[in-house]
Amino acid sequence: MTYTIGVDFGTESGRALLVDTRDGREVATAVHAYKSGVIDETLPTSGKKLLPDWALQDPLDYLDVINTTIPAVLKDSGVNPAEVVGVAIDFTACTMLPVKADGTPLRALPEWQNHPHAWVKLWKHHASQPQADQINETARKMGESWLNRYGGKISSEWFFSKALQIIQEAPEVYHAADRLIEAADWVIWQLTGVETRNTCTAGYKAMVQDGEFPRKEYFAALHPEFADVVDSKMSRTFAELGTKAGGLTAQFAASTGLPAGIAVAVANVDAHVTAPAVKATAPGVMVMIMGTSTCHIMSGEAQQVVDGMCGVVQGGIIPGLYGYEAGQSGVGDIFAWFVDNAVPPEYHEAAKNAGLNLHEYLEREAAKQKVGEHGLIALDWWNGNRSTLVDVDLTGLLVGATLATRAPEIYRALIEATAYGTREIIEAFEARGVEVKELIAAGGLPEKNALLRQIYADVTGRTFKLAGSAQAPALGSAMHAAVAAGVYPNIQAAAEKMGKLKDEIVSPIPENQAIYNQLYADYKTLYDYFGRGTNDVMKRLKAIKRAAVAG
Amino acid sequence: MTYTIGVDFGTESGRALLVDTRDGREVATAVHAYKSGVIDETLPTSGKKLLPDWALQDPLDYLDVINTTIPAVLKDSGVNPAEVVGVAIDFTACTMLPVKADGTPLRALPEWQNHPHAWVKLWKHHASQPQADQINETARKMGESWLNRYGGKISSEWFFSKALQIIQEAPEVYHAADRLIEAADWVIWQLTGVETRNTCTAGYKAMVQDGEFPRKEYFAALHPEFADVVDSKMSRTFAELGTKAGGLTAQFAASTGLPAGIAVAVANVDAHVTAPAVKATAPGVMVMIMGTSTCHIMSGEAQQVVDGMCGVVQGGIIPGLYGYEAGQSGVGDIFAWFVDNAVPPEYHEAAKNAGLNLHEYLEREAAKQKVGEHGLIALDWWNGNRSTLVDVDLTGLLVGATLATRAPEIYRALIEATAYGTREIIEAFEARGVEVKELIAAGGLPEKNALLRQIYADVTGRTFKLAGSAQAPALGSAMHAAVAAGVYPNIQAAAEKMGKLKDEIVSPIPENQAIYNQLYADYKTLYDYFGRGTNDVMKRLKAIKRAAVAG
Repeated sequence: MTYTIGVDFGTESGRALLVDTRDGREVATAVHAYKSGVIDETLPTSGKKLLPDWALQDPLDYLDVINTTIPAVLKDSGVNPAEVVGVAIDFTACTMLPVKADGTPLRALPEWQNHPHAWVKLWKHHASQPQADQINETARKMGESWLNRYGGKISSEWFFSKALQIIQEAPEVYHAADRLIEAADWVIWQLTGVETRNTCTAGYKAMVQDGEFPRKEYFAALHPEFADVVDSKMSRTFAELGTKAGGLTAQFAASTGLPAGIAVAVANVDAHVTAPAVKATAPGVMVMIMGTSTCHIMSGEAQQVVDGMCGVVQGGIIPGLYGYEAGQSGVGDIFAWFVDNAVPPEYHEAAKNAGLNLHEYLEREAAKQKVGEHGLIALDWWNGNRSTLVDVDLTGLLVGATLATRAPEIYRALIEATAYGTREIIEAFEARGVEVKELIAAGGLPEKNALLRQIYADVTGRTFKLAGSAQAPALGSAMHAAVAAGVYPNIQAAAEKMGKLKDEIVSPIPENQAIYNQLYADYKTLYDYFGRGTNDVMKRLKAIKRAAVAG
Repeated sequence: MTYTIGVDFGTESGRALLVDTRDGREVATAVHAYKSGVIDETLPTSGKKLLPDWALQDPLDYLDVINTTIPAVLKDSGVNPAEVVGVAIDFTACTMLPVKADGTPLRALPEWQNHPHAWVKLWKHHASQPQADQINETARKMGESWLNRYGGKISSEWFFSKALQIIQEAPEVYHAADRLIEAADWVIWQLTGVETRNTCTAGYKAMVQDGEFPRKEYFAALHPEFADVVDSKMSRTFAELGTKAGGLTAQFAASTGLPAGIAVAVANVDAHVTAPAVKATAPGVMVMIMGTSTCHIMSGEAQQVVDGMCGVVQGGIIPGLYGYEAGQSGVGDIFAWFVDNAVPPEYHEAAKNAGLNLHEYLEREAAKQKVGEHGLIALDWWNGNRSTLVDVDLTGLLVGATLATRAPEIYRALIEATAYGTREIIEAFEARGVEVKELIAAGGLPEKNALLRQIYADVTGRTFKLAGSAQAPALGSAMHAAVAAGVYPNIQAAAEKMGKLKDEIVSPIPENQAIYNQLYADYKTLYDYFGRGTNDVMKRLKAIKRAAVAG
């Protein structure tokens, strides 16, 4: 009888989950909100106002999560700590920070604590866009081979965009830092005393391909002093997912109540760790982590360059397989925009009278419509397009409205638009021979919305299953902890016993598929017309808008 | 000191206006709502349910308007009836009915009163679409020369679509009718005992071009017994606008209190009669009657075939000039759709707190935006496209939405879209050498919305003036009555003295024009792409919708 603990570090809080390794039974869970949350207005120490698009965190908040949630799950579960054999974590990414050689974050040092660049740059810190632009332009000019493994474009959210911003804007911070590291790896370093670099963030966020970073000449072209960023601040050794990073230190054993020396697994990313939690360890099973946006995670046998993907990384999700990542930058966000900004009072009233929230009410009304009855098609680009087109300057489109169009019809059209967007991603995979056999979704959005599940099945022509755990990332981490502790030989074996799916299997309805195939053909025509340069009206509108705001 | 009375027959009610012929001063006005209003659900006599798209009226309601509003304006004004020298009317069109040889409407006869086809077919009776389709297809096949004078398409709303529906669906009614006549002309017949056919409805609604109806062979091709529809049920003599149809009968003199024998002018159409009311009697002044939809009325020196116009008729607006008509099928309707269906509660609340209605509040907020700041373009086809494309199957489009898009921004984009639609019509005119020098708008919509006036000026690059009277059609009728009574030699002279404009002249702002020229270029690209067959997605969506609803 053994247990493991998975800790999932989200954007606002961290959650620990204590799990029975025999069957994945979730015995106890505890959440701790970060004291400083997302720091995007003023620095907590100095009160200094941050510039637009900054988003920081306090690394000390992460340790508070460890020290509060692990004792809480031990206490709540009544489990004997001696039976806990391993710990693992997953994190948002790229979320990175500068630290000293002993792991001390610069932010924890009095001389640096008032410097914004000394803090953690959270995944959604977008102030590194100029650096991302420079990274992309330089890579294109120099013909860097790794660029097309990332859909031809590096994001402002990724590691070197953020690191380049530090050296350009605060060289003193850059030079004071002995290491630049993912927060995920930093927490593991704290727990074990061992500095590791996990293959997942290295591959997806730090341009490591086939075990190699970009070459020195490339980094030198970005900034003369950046040439040796890898050798001076990082590491060329990568730790495979599910392996043991080290044993729990005496210090953290004392603060958490866990036995010293138990296995601590290599860190992972929240989206990617979800795959084993939903038993998606074999090629061809697409996992969709659906919330404000959707992250698509899938493993394949071979490495293929798929147009407009976020990245492909060897062992990035499951050791031994190529891990593919794609995404849609607006999903739940678009539905929330609609509900907040485009639904008249009568529906708010009706929802209240029906005892439903507005999403539930609109879903119920939309479910009464026959496929195609609303006469609408939308392009799901309210927040740009992350995969296949990789273009933040694309915007939303709705076609087909008449004087008889009503809110539940548009709501349904928006759900369908996001399903068409997923089908577009699936087709991009399959065009390169990467098969997509079925869909498994995790997150509150697909769990709550039965209409969405059916629409995705009908539009994509694939069965649609749901994660069995509401804490899939933490469960996935607990599974990696079990592998690191030797309870299971590999993540596949752990997934078989501990992974969970809901019983419901949503299958495509052939009559619906036939109509959605017609509608998707029109979506695709509009997608190509507006997304691939035939008519760049969306970009021109954004340019005119920027000029209007500026002048 | 003389007075005239203009009576404006609208969709729901009729209005009389008593006017001083010296200066157009509006002395008294009275409104009478039709007892049966728009009959589109059940027949008032039998209670029989009407089919979809039917819209009837009771001709007896029109006489009630005469008999209640004229005594009311005489009484209210205190004017000596002996000083009233003329009466004229304007009407919705084509609004037509079957009558006996003495003018008795079939609907007034006990043997016909329960038959829907015996009643007035109101302008918005759209159940004649199959007949309109047949009329158009037959005309195309037979190469009828008049077809391109109507933008290449006859509407279901027009005279022969409605007449053909009668002979096809109710031959007994067709044969019982001695005459088929515009309600406008029928009311004049009642007032004078003289049957006239005005040039305006004959030209715009009954395909009379260069004084001739379509040839007999054409009518025969529609239906064998329809060959002699003109000679058996209508007239080949047309009465010029502003001429005297006859003198007021003793019967109506008694019921109204007016002197018997005073001049009654030839009937007119509500939109067209507005032109002289706003002094638009010269070529190149485009009058826009703006409400739920917009009707564009303009005179020109020469007859040109302008692509996609509603019609061009010699003397159709001003005797001696060619009268052009165009239209946008959704304008105020689109704004009302938006306000009713796409604005969240917070704006309803804010409007209430500001003491404004929601249109006023959104206009105020939209007016704070710089041109182009919202990043949006819409195609104003929520209700199809009446002129330039002449296509009821086109639908609305909105491009450029982001998660930051808010209701006042979309509201502004919709106003702009209708302005782009008007510019499209202007450009179609000018492409054929029909110059459009300035815009004059009538109706509550432009009067209430200052932002709309500026946007139309900026988008079209033309000065924008407002009608001086809130009852412009009734005023225009009163002016025609003054011409018919010999107070003025012609309508131009009457317009000079009696026509009215507001003092405000809105001029285009060059900086705004520069940006709107860019935005209009993109509107035009989308307009051509979706409207001219490059991408018929709107039609496919309508077809899928129809199939979904049917099956």
